[in-house]
Amino acid sequence: MNKVDHIGIAVKSLEETLPFYTNVLGLTCLAIEIVPTENVRVAFLDANNVKIELMEATSPNSPIAKYVDKRGEGIHHIAFNVTSIESRIHELKEKGIRMLNEVPKQGAGDAMVAFMHPKSGHGVLYELCEKPLEEENSD
Amino acid sequence: MNKVDHIGIAVKSLEETLPFYTNVLGLTCLAIEIVPTENVRVAFLDANNVKIELMEATSPNSPIAKYVDKRGEGIHHIAFNVTSIESRIHELKEKGIRMLNEVPKQGAGDAMVAFMHPKSGHGVLYELCEKPLEEENSD
Repeated sequence: MNKVDHIGIAVKSLEETLPFYTNVLGLTCLAIEIVPTENVRVAFLDANNVKIELMEATSPNSPIAKYVDKRGEGIHHIAFNVTSIESRIHELKEKGIRMLNEVPKQGAGDAMVAFMHPKSGHGVLYELCEKPLEEENSD
Repeated sequence: MNKVDHIGIAVKSLEETLPFYTNVLGLTCLAIEIVPTENVRVAFLDANNVKIELMEATSPNSPIAKYVDKRGEGIHHIAFNVTSIESRIHELKEKGIRMLNEVPKQGAGDAMVAFMHPKSGHGVLYELCEKPLEEENSD
């Protein structure tokens, strides 16, 4: 695991939440984008050493809608930046870790991502996140 | 907010959880200490750009025991590194933020800390964390 890429936070509404992050905490909003495969709209904020990803459901079928319904708004996952995500998944499985995604899928920001089962993470949902090379080098 | 200092994670047992972080994720355990004021024992792990703080209750009265009983193990808080914590608290209150601690209290690693009310943080428990000068400079 190279470093923490971002912390994912489930929110009801980006519009209602963003002013807290920009005006109160003073963070810069880097990008807002829709991730169609996950039915979410996300905002990335720059917290200097890591990013904060706010996630809003775009459909009641979104995993984020279900999360917010069940647990309320809050911290959803921690994403580690990795290189060679397929190799990392293979290593984790060898170590007995249960993956929610055994094959990487498309995430936000052109990243390839895979989640571990939160039972394997002792209650924490951990994401592996491999960035396109040019962005990784500019971090 | 200078940067994210650490991500706090509530666990039932440090002994049962640490092998996942050290052997599986490959992170280095920097320190284990007891914070008597909070009735917790904490382990700090180095995730390169941020630290991960695992927190285990040392008493049923610990806020972490209550958290784990209610919600299970999982991500508990995000701590921002700040300078002049009293000034930051004053600014946050001026902006309408409700603080759980209006006066900083002693946290782990000789830091002075103060938590915002999670309602002000849209479901996220945010901590302000001011480190002793020598450690801050070595970060």
